Amino acid sequence: MHAYRSHTCAELNKSNVGETVRLSGWVHRVRDHGGLLFIDLRDHYGVTQVMADPDSPVFAEIEKVRSEWCIRIDGEVKARDESLVNHKIPTGEVEVFIRDIEVLGKSEELPLMVFGDQEYPEETRLRYRYLDLRREKMQKNMLLRSNMVASIRRRMWDIGFNEYQTPIITASSPEGARDFLVPSRLHPGKFYALPQAPQQFKQLMMVSGFDKYFQIAPCFRDEDPRADRSPTDFYQLDMEMSFVTQQDVFDTIEPVMKGVFEEFGGGRKVDQTWPQISYKDAALWYGTDKPDLRNPIKMQVVSDHFRGSGFAIFAKLLEQDGTEIRAIPAPKGGSRKFCDRMNAFAQKEGLPGMGYIFWREGADGMEAAGPLAKNIGPERTEAIRQQLELGVGDAAFFLGGKPKTFQTVAGKARNVIGEELGLTEQDRFAFAWIVDFPIYQEDEESGKLDFDHNPFSMPKGGMEALEGDPLAVTGYQYDLACNGYELVSGAIRNHKPEIMFKAFEIAGYGEDEVKKRFGGMVNAFQYGAPPHGGCAAGIDRMVMLLADEANIREVIMFPMNQRAEDLMMAAPSEPLAEQLMELGLRVIPQDQ
Amino acid sequence: MHAYRSHTCAELNKSNVGETVRLSGWVHRVRDHGGLLFIDLRDHYGVTQVMADPDSPVFAEIEKVRSEWCIRIDGEVKARDESLVNHKIPTGEVEVFIRDIEVLGKSEELPLMVFGDQEYPEETRLRYRYLDLRREKMQKNMLLRSNMVASIRRRMWDIGFNEYQTPIITASSPEGARDFLVPSRLHPGKFYALPQAPQQFKQLMMVSGFDKYFQIAPCFRDEDPRADRSPTDFYQLDMEMSFVTQQDVFDTIEPVMKGVFEEFGGGRKVDQTWPQISYKDAALWYGTDKPDLRNPIKMQVVSDHFRGSGFAIFAKLLEQDGTEIRAIPAPKGGSRKFCDRMNAFAQKEGLPGMGYIFWREGADGMEAAGPLAKNIGPERTEAIRQQLELGVGDAAFFLGGKPKTFQTVAGKARNVIGEELGLTEQDRFAFAWIVDFPIYQEDEESGKLDFDHNPFSMPKGGMEALEGDPLAVTGYQYDLACNGYELVSGAIRNHKPEIMFKAFEIAGYGEDEVKKRFGGMVNAFQYGAPPHGGCAAGIDRMVMLLADEANIREVIMFPMNQRAEDLMMAAPSEPLAEQLMELGLRVIPQDQ
Repeated sequence: MHAYRSHTCAELNKSNVGETVRLSGWVHRVRDHGGLLFIDLRDHYGVTQVMADPDSPVFAEIEKVRSEWCIRIDGEVKARDESLVNHKIPTGEVEVFIRDIEVLGKSEELPLMVFGDQEYPEETRLRYRYLDLRREKMQKNMLLRSNMVASIRRRMWDIGFNEYQTPIITASSPEGARDFLVPSRLHPGKFYALPQAPQQFKQLMMVSGFDKYFQIAPCFRDEDPRADRSPTDFYQLDMEMSFVTQQDVFDTIEPVMKGVFEEFGGGRKVDQTWPQISYKDAALWYGTDKPDLRNPIKMQVVSDHFRGSGFAIFAKLLEQDGTEIRAIPAPKGGSRKFCDRMNAFAQKEGLPGMGYIFWREGADGMEAAGPLAKNIGPERTEAIRQQLELGVGDAAFFLGGKPKTFQTVAGKARNVIGEELGLTEQDRFAFAWIVDFPIYQEDEESGKLDFDHNPFSMPKGGMEALEGDPLAVTGYQYDLACNGYELVSGAIRNHKPEIMFKAFEIAGYGEDEVKKRFGGMVNAFQYGAPPHGGCAAGIDRMVMLLADEANIREVIMFPMNQRAEDLMMAAPSEPLAEQLMELGLRVIPQDQ
Repeated sequence: MHAYRSHTCAELNKSNVGETVRLSGWVHRVRDHGGLLFIDLRDHYGVTQVMADPDSPVFAEIEKVRSEWCIRIDGEVKARDESLVNHKIPTGEVEVFIRDIEVLGKSEELPLMVFGDQEYPEETRLRYRYLDLRREKMQKNMLLRSNMVASIRRRMWDIGFNEYQTPIITASSPEGARDFLVPSRLHPGKFYALPQAPQQFKQLMMVSGFDKYFQIAPCFRDEDPRADRSPTDFYQLDMEMSFVTQQDVFDTIEPVMKGVFEEFGGGRKVDQTWPQISYKDAALWYGTDKPDLRNPIKMQVVSDHFRGSGFAIFAKLLEQDGTEIRAIPAPKGGSRKFCDRMNAFAQKEGLPGMGYIFWREGADGMEAAGPLAKNIGPERTEAIRQQLELGVGDAAFFLGGKPKTFQTVAGKARNVIGEELGLTEQDRFAFAWIVDFPIYQEDEESGKLDFDHNPFSMPKGGMEALEGDPLAVTGYQYDLACNGYELVSGAIRNHKPEIMFKAFEIAGYGEDEVKKRFGGMVNAFQYGAPPHGGCAAGIDRMVMLLADEANIREVIMFPMNQRAEDLMMAAPSEPLAEQLMELGLRVIPQDQ
């Protein structure tokens, strides 16, 4: 017989009755039923009930066993009495009568119980991650992640992509975050950087003719930690293709993402049609470039109804350039209580408040309520109602000013309204491509132009467009939003050196600066660069959505804590003096 | 029609004749045949001949095209004259008459030709890697690597392993090399380390119950560069299993490796039976723990034949403790010229020389020649011949002393002899497991004991063995050798804290020191650790063997040069002052 097991803890059933078997696993739970000892023996695959009575030759041994000891047992498979069958687990028809036992690994008293649902502080869970990971939910989450990544790889191979690894210890590849630096021992005083993304390398591969690349790529950004962000390394499905248009990229990645969400979504609905929404429309309709389309609410411009109206605040606002009044329709939100709560929400978010109108059944039929309705009078109120297609029991909220000043709060309010009113569909993955991102943004104060998104995207209209109003230029640049998260980001790249230099020049970067910062790529483009484009999808985010987890640390095997520390492994730690010496570095004493 | 291509450059054949097609790719070669312009248009998939005559509406455009320009052409597929069919390529039956052309990316004058076999200095190739990678051999090597890694993943999944990612920015995980350090911005003065291997994490996963783990894992060792070693990151197939014996690990990984070598070996023979050879025997027979078994030569101890013999040097040597005389049989090496050359080889390697005997047809039948034979006389010479099973036309070389002093040279001599005499089989992958590595080695001068290999291996015989002579203790620790290279290394781990502390104590590390250096793992073992083991296989080395390349940079997409620099991307480079400031570091000025 094998040294440790003839079967896993998920394999035995009625067909094994009478067999002598060997199982290894962890003591999930011990129960003493009137002198009979029952142990739920657990391994990666499942649980099997093993038991001993006082006649067992090893009863005394078994009495010593405690939770989470790792043991091997030999025993005989017996059928359970029909009334004792556990239909919830595959091994529920049988139990194993222990004839021999070996303790493979004892356990000290547990700082964290594996059995049961007790909650522990995150620091405890991370410090004893090896115990935390034994818990059923964590085993499931890690398996989900592993299976999802495997499925992505299979799907990418099936459509002709090859996975190529790009360097990890390399040069800075700026993506808008801080680099992690790695001091060079052979070149003291010089540093490598860990890539924020394999952006330049994948573009270089296209210049090399590899045609279809992907990688489940580790990425490194030294950012301040957040619940939904790993403070150190995270993974992307990174892909790039040559000789393609934007629509080609969509047509390539859509089936992969749909397939993955269908395979691992546990029956949740996966939208089959993914609208393409311009950045501008997304901002207007949803107040964000990562809208949650499970929420049917679409905001609208209602400025005309307020222009010159009795609601002086909005009427005056509208006299300024660039201002607008927007409405958030709130079907079924037609109660003063709800409207006041939403007004308070806006105030908490830093706005003066949100005006509202709601419609109710009055003495003479439908009547509009709320201070705004009174100020603008019944005709305008009715025109608004008609535009928003609302009726009795519904409400609408109003925000005014320059869109930039209230758009984000409007987007948040839309989310809260959708959730509170039960409008946001559950158990659904709703996707939308956000397209036509502006290439540049203007700094409010300095008036200086800078890249809004990714400096490597091809401007729509090419060189000609760049010679017009830069703020009007949009790019072949896209995000995929899902349920309010940005899941994918990508672009058709600017592969023409002359257009790239022009694009950078507008943002204030001279040719020398560009060559210095992106020399590898810019040089390569001078030797026959193909048109190419691609995208990157956040692996951690995808698992979070599929596992329905809000905290990224629930879907990473060994995550850092929120202070970017690994308390289990003691990282980061003080270097040895000789290490610093070899690297030619000195630590500057910090002020306490 | 698609914006860039209706077909790839490998797709068109006779069945497409008459179709109007669109192709995109690189100008591989332009030929002017009496006014007709022929272009070999190349993409990732193949080459198609496209052509234009002076009547073409775009002839003038096409005349401007140069090597490695990236172009799109539209044209009509025509059959080639039977006499002009190129049977070497799938598209050789047709050519495309160009009707329209678009230059997608011009090229400057090339620092490195893609077409042809011209050799370039490695620095040129690395600086213009994007051009170098367009060459056929590099495309093939990269595809081989990608396909091999994909195949490994499929094979591991098929046998129930899941891939889990382990942290990259983490704590030091010493494997005998220097760590790469990453300064922490949030904790100035503290450093993370990049893992030399995911050793501790994979063992922690076993403690967590994940049962079967693998990962194509990036590993980081700050080592001085060599031709067969990447100076920064490299990849391993890292795997670990719970509840297994050493033989289980072999039975698991052998079919995976065999499968991969058969799939990508291009018909080369893959040994089906892999011997298990003890470290001691390997040292004796082959002079190395990574023997090349394509070479049939097996060394033997022949001390007895020299004890008290007329060859005073060996006879005297043997009076000292721990000395031995070993013979390298050299079938077909029986010429003075060859023997003298091998003697010179040994001298070049730092030994006084290698004695030899060779057997030839004399006047009275077989005769033994060489100075050694004369010194020890015919009887002893004949006894040696019989032990080594040699005959006319064969030779034997002799080395004496403490094995440590000559073993390495003996191993090298065995390689040279095998190759020069044509004994080493070509086109074959010969594998052997090397087992029973000693746990400890003794420092010659200080007499201090230290770990010989991996400190985490389970000693054979457990605690009892450690209580005896440490130098006699071997471990469940193994390497897989293939054609003279170490391809895999692994062990059954020491999962019992008390045995681990004892093992470290013998090597001079106290409990505190062990807890400090390997705290994560040691703590984990106190909470029910399962028996477990695994191994890691070098991905780069496997590709090198399969691609028959001696230089690791031929099988890595974007390698560093031998000074650990990436000249294309300018890494490493000087940090910005503000970056150093944020990290709390100062660079110590170096002496010039």
